[in-house]
Formats: sequence, C-alpha cells, structure tokens
Amino acid sequence: MRTDPDCGLEPDRKEVFAVIRRDGEARAGRLRTPHGLVETPVFMPVGTAGSVKALGPDDLRSLGARIILGNTYHLYLRPGDELIARQGGLHRFCAWDRPILTDSGGFQAFSLSALSSFSEEGIAFRSHLDGSRHFFTPEKALRIQQNLDSDIMMVLDECVPHNTPYAYTVESVERTTRWALRSLAAFAPESEKEKRPLLFAITQGGFFKDLRARSVESLAECPFDGFAIGGLSVGEGKEEMYEMLAHTLPLLPKDKPRYLMGVGTPVDLVTGIGLGVDMFDCVLPTRNARNGTLFTSVGKISIKRREFAEDDGPLDPACSCYACRTFSRAYLRHLFMSGEILALRLNSLHNLTYYRNLMGSARRAIREGTFEAFRVRIAALYESKDAPL
Amino acid sequence: MRTDPDCGLEPDRKEVFAVIRRDGEARAGRLRTPHGLVETPVFMPVGTAGSVKALGPDDLRSLGARIILGNTYHLYLRPGDELIARQGGLHRFCAWDRPILTDSGGFQAFSLSALSSFSEEGIAFRSHLDGSRHFFTPEKALRIQQNLDSDIMMVLDECVPHNTPYAYTVESVERTTRWALRSLAAFAPESEKEKRPLLFAITQGGFFKDLRARSVESLAECPFDGFAIGGLSVGEGKEEMYEMLAHTLPLLPKDKPRYLMGVGTPVDLVTGIGLGVDMFDCVLPTRNARNGTLFTSVGKISIKRREFAEDDGPLDPACSCYACRTFSRAYLRHLFMSGEILALRLNSLHNLTYYRNLMGSARRAIREGTFEAFRVRIAALYESKDAPL
Repeated sequence: MRTDPDCGLEPDRKEVFAVIRRDGEARAGRLRTPHGLVETPVFMPVGTAGSVKALGPDDLRSLGARIILGNTYHLYLRPGDELIARQGGLHRFCAWDRPILTDSGGFQAFSLSALSSFSEEGIAFRSHLDGSRHFFTPEKALRIQQNLDSDIMMVLDECVPHNTPYAYTVESVERTTRWALRSLAAFAPESEKEKRPLLFAITQGGFFKDLRARSVESLAECPFDGFAIGGLSVGEGKEEMYEMLAHTLPLLPKDKPRYLMGVGTPVDLVTGIGLGVDMFDCVLPTRNARNGTLFTSVGKISIKRREFAEDDGPLDPACSCYACRTFSRAYLRHLFMSGEILALRLNSLHNLTYYRNLMGSARRAIREGTFEAFRVRIAALYESKDAPL
Repeated sequence: MRTDPDCGLEPDRKEVFAVIRRDGEARAGRLRTPHGLVETPVFMPVGTAGSVKALGPDDLRSLGARIILGNTYHLYLRPGDELIARQGGLHRFCAWDRPILTDSGGFQAFSLSALSSFSEEGIAFRSHLDGSRHFFTPEKALRIQQNLDSDIMMVLDECVPHNTPYAYTVESVERTTRWALRSLAAFAPESEKEKRPLLFAITQGGFFKDLRARSVESLAECPFDGFAIGGLSVGEGKEEMYEMLAHTLPLLPKDKPRYLMGVGTPVDLVTGIGLGVDMFDCVLPTRNARNGTLFTSVGKISIKRREFAEDDGPLDPACSCYACRTFSRAYLRHLFMSGEILALRLNSLHNLTYYRNLMGSARRAIREGTFEAFRVRIAALYESKDAPL
C-alpha cells in the first residue's frame, strides 16, 4: 500500500475514500483498496472471464490501468470461484496485483440466461454455457466474490429492463434493498478485518424518479463503502439516462464513492463526472476495438475506412500507446482487414489508453477548476459530424 | 550490421554465409543479411500476412526471434506489395527491423487457389480472397519480393504433390530450373549492390532420387546465395521424407546455407540438422499453439486436458517465456477453454520460445561436438508415449 503523505486519506485504515478536490459537482478523489489506491474519477476495463479481452497484464500495466473489473457470473461458472480460491484468488490466478472490482453476477444471470427467475430468496438461472441450474442468493454472491479475493464487492441486485411497469419496479426496488441489507449482514464478520475488501450497494428504481429516490434513501444510511447506480444504459435514450442520473446523484452520500455501472461512451463519462460520478466500467472500448472502431483525440474512427489504406501516420498522434508509437494506420487497417489476431490486441490497447488518458485529463481539469470547459470540448468532439481526421 | 570479429565472415561483404563448426553432418554457421546476422541452424516463425499470428514485434523480440518469414502470395494480394513499398517496405510496415525471408508465392498460388495452371511463362491463379485473376512469373515474383524489401528472396518454383507421376515430375523439375535461371538473370542488377538481398534457389524432384539429384546438379553451380529443398512434408511418411533429405543434402554445395521449406516438428528439426540443414520454417508451432497443443521440455501436451484444471505450476518449468514466468497451467487452460484471445498470444509466445530454445541448444551441441546425443534425446522425448508431465 502506498503511504503517499499527499494521498488525502487519513492513516486510519477504515477510511476508504476521500474527495480531494471539487469543481462544480465533479470530484477528484482517492479510493483505498486492499490492493492499493485508485485515483477517481476512474474507468475500469472489463476483464469478464479473468482476462481483459485480447490483453495481457503486461499490456494493462503498459497502458496504466489501475483497477479492472471481473464478472462474478462468468468466473463462478468457469473455471469456478472455488477453483480460483484454491489457486490463491483472482489476482494471483490472472497475474494482476492491482485492485479488482467484481460485480454481483445478478445482471448476467438475468441477461445471459435463457431461463431466470427472481424470488425473495434469490435468482434461479441456467448457465448459458451448458444449461445447468444455479441459484444466487445475496449471501452466495458475496461468498463467490470473497473466493475471488475481490477488492470491491457488489451486492446482488435486480436490474429491471427499460419500460418495466411501475408496480413491478416498486417490488424489485424493495427486494433489492432487502438483499443489500442481507449482504451487509453477511459481510459483517469481514468488515472487522484490517485489510478488508469494500462493499458497495447498488441503487435501482428504473425510470421512476420517486423509486430512484426511495432506493437511495433506503440504502444511503447503511455503512456501505460506496454506492452504485444500476439499471441505466439499458436501452433508454441518452437524455433520459442523464436526467435520471442528475436526479439520483445529489441524493447519494457526498463522502462515499459513486459508481455508474456499465456506462459508457466518452461523452457519457464526462457527463457523468460533471454530475458527480467517480467510477465507471463498460465493455465499449474493448468491444469497439475488436470491431475496428477506435477513439482518438479527433473523434471516433473506423480503421476499416479505405482512406487509411496508405496512411503512414500514427492512429492518433496525441496518443503514446504501443500501437500509436509503433505502427501506421495503414498497417493497423491491414491487420484488421486481414483478420489478424494482433489487430485485436493493438486496437484494445489503444482504446483503453484513450479512456485512461480521458480520465487523467478529467482529473487534471477538476484539480485545475476547468472541468466544465473540458466536458464541453469532449462533447463537441463527438457531436461534430465533421471531426477532422 | 554487427562487426563482431568472431563472426566467422570475411569482411568482404559479398560473403554471406560461413560454417563455423561441424559435428558430423550438422553445421553451426552464420548468415549475413541486409538486416543483420543470423546464427544457424535457425527456425523462422511464419508471419504470413505481415504478422506472426497473435504476436506483436514486441513479443517476437522478447522471445529472441532473429528472422521471420513473410508470404509473398498473401502480401501481394493484400495489402499489395506496391502499397508496402510505398510504406517503406515490409520491415517498416510491420515494425520488424531484423531479417525477413520471403517465399516466392508459387506454393500458395498452387495450394490456396481454386484454379491454377503452370505454363512455361509462369503460374496463372485466382485469388482465394476474391477470385480475381493473377499471373506470377519468376521475374514478377522477384519484383514483388524486392517491393517487400526482403532480405532473402526465393525463386519461383513448382512444388508437386506427393504421388505425382515420374513424367510430370521430370517436366516440372526442368521448368523449375529454367525459372531459377530466369530469376538469377533478373536478379543480376541487384547483385551488384553493396547491401543486397540474398537469392536462394529451390531444388525439387518429388520422391524420385534421380530427379532430386538432377534438380540439384542443374542449380548447384549457379551463384545462388543458398539452396532450399522444396516439395517435402507434402503428405509422405516421415521415413520417406528423411530418406529423400538424406539423399539430397550431400549433393548440395557445402559452403552455402541449406533451407528445408515448411518443416516441421521438433523431431524433424533435429533430424534435419543432423543431416546438414541450416534453416527451417513452419506454421506448426503457431498453429498448434492456437489449437492448444504446446511443446515443453518433457514433450507435447494439450492444455485442454482436465488434469491441468487445478495445476498451479508453470506450463514448462524449464522455459523462461512470459507465459511460463507469469501464469499457471490452470490459468492457461482456463483462458483456452473460455476462448479468450489472450490464450492465442501466450500459447504462441511459448511454442516459439520452445523452438528458439531447441535451436539454441542444437547450435550449442554442435559447437560442443555433442549433437548426436542431443538429437537422440529429443527424438526419444517425442517418441515416448509416457513422457512425464
């Protein structure tokens, strides 16, 4: 653990988060986990099955990733959380010694499984791999995450689809709160330990402002280490998402980290930060990379475009990732068009470097009190149809 | 270019190869190319379309690759040799500043194309990508390789399938010789240059000893920089391949490098070296890697095997590659079983490291006069059905 005197965290090991600087609603902070400090706002690359797709831990280090996400559902099914525990935990298993946040598995149990059903006790589902039957309770989801040696564990929740009726959303929000309290109770013995993992609650409420408020109110007073906003980016429009976010964030405790789950685009990130979000995760930069869509300092480009065939310049002159330092757009296009596996690694390395730099710039802008101008600049970059290439 | 006083090469830049040490028929030598020296015997990883599949040049450097192969047929079709020339050549295009050998494209034009036909002038074929019509002449194959900035260029040849009748093989061998002489004539202006690429002839002859001898005799006196043995490993049995190799090698010039094309397994390599081969290439280590078959100091293993599921030891304790230094067999198995892209990179890195180490050990054994014992040990390792794991 770093003992940086400027880290802004009290030596008391129980303090896990501190806001270092505010700029409007945007916050620059530091989060302490068993595997080290994380500066916020932060974007967490998604390592679904114990690997951020197409990248090794050497690549993740080279691009400056400080924390990654692991998917409880996937790792529970394959290779199994107990196997990973016997191998010394997920950090040792995948050779990543920096922090790992794990989700609760509920979202995938619902979205990937052909047959899933929610009851007061938990979620019954079938494996998308072999159809076998499984059951997650809040307590089991925690136990799995403990087996994974997670730094930041998420409570089991229910994420309702867009357009879920009010009546069901009420029922779901209340159950999600009861599950969060069961998680807290199950976590109690863990919370006494010196170098303990963190436990985050997830607020829900669909697209009903009163239910979003009710969800936050019922959880905000409980001693969670952080609060996530779940159930957004599930098919609604951007405006509706931002409106729900702007409504919910002011209700959350000011002294705890706020995590917007499964979001998003560069514009989503700077918009979220501007409203007070501290943490993000999304498969977008890595999935886009594998589809040849790359983020650059002048906007989003498709490496497939004919105009890059003979372009001997770097993908993004402003980027210092291995791909941009070493290869031309012509070569990156050739690799992608030829279906070369190396394209997936280089594109992923680049997109995650872009996201890392975007968040670094956001933190700097907050510290310098210029975040709003930064946000507007990024939004304009992606709204312009005529971004120069 | 290295100026190692011990390099065994005369300062005269026209000397490109020297045998430093003999041990029986096995030879340790050094080959000088425009992009540096290569110690032989050497195995050349195959970078078909300007990328050794799943690896970056950073990986190739980390595993100690000294020379790679590029496929003329593939690069000519996509992205095009002229495009690569405008990008500064293949070295610059794929960020590899060490030597590159290019084949002539004839083998792929024949084997990948649905419709191909040989005439005295050259090979007519259709692209396997889009069906477009193309024609390779010996002169054109050289021009393409010059566009690629190849260090070692191969003459256009015809590789006949196993079981080709005698009469056709005669015709084909004679044409292959005429094509080699046309290549030499086309190469003449190039050969005057100070830092010139090398030109290798390819001997053929199917599985007829008299035709193998005729092919060598008709080419051996010509000023090629090296001689390849083509047309082996095309479906015949191992014994037949080794017999044909043992018959042909003594006929080749003793002072020129000898390259066995498209071969092979670790046992093929040490057998070939024992008979006097200096250079090899094959997709086997990288293709096997992508199928989960890995070479280790105790034999060949499939990483898919159930017994590795909880094996926290390294893939090969005797290997120092990034995969073996960093991850367990359990993790490598998990990555492979989960279809993770990272598995392809790590497995390829490992198999090519194994081949690099095998060749390093062979060179050392030759220098120490213990090659035959080394060859027997490697052959026994892969013949044993009960290799310990």
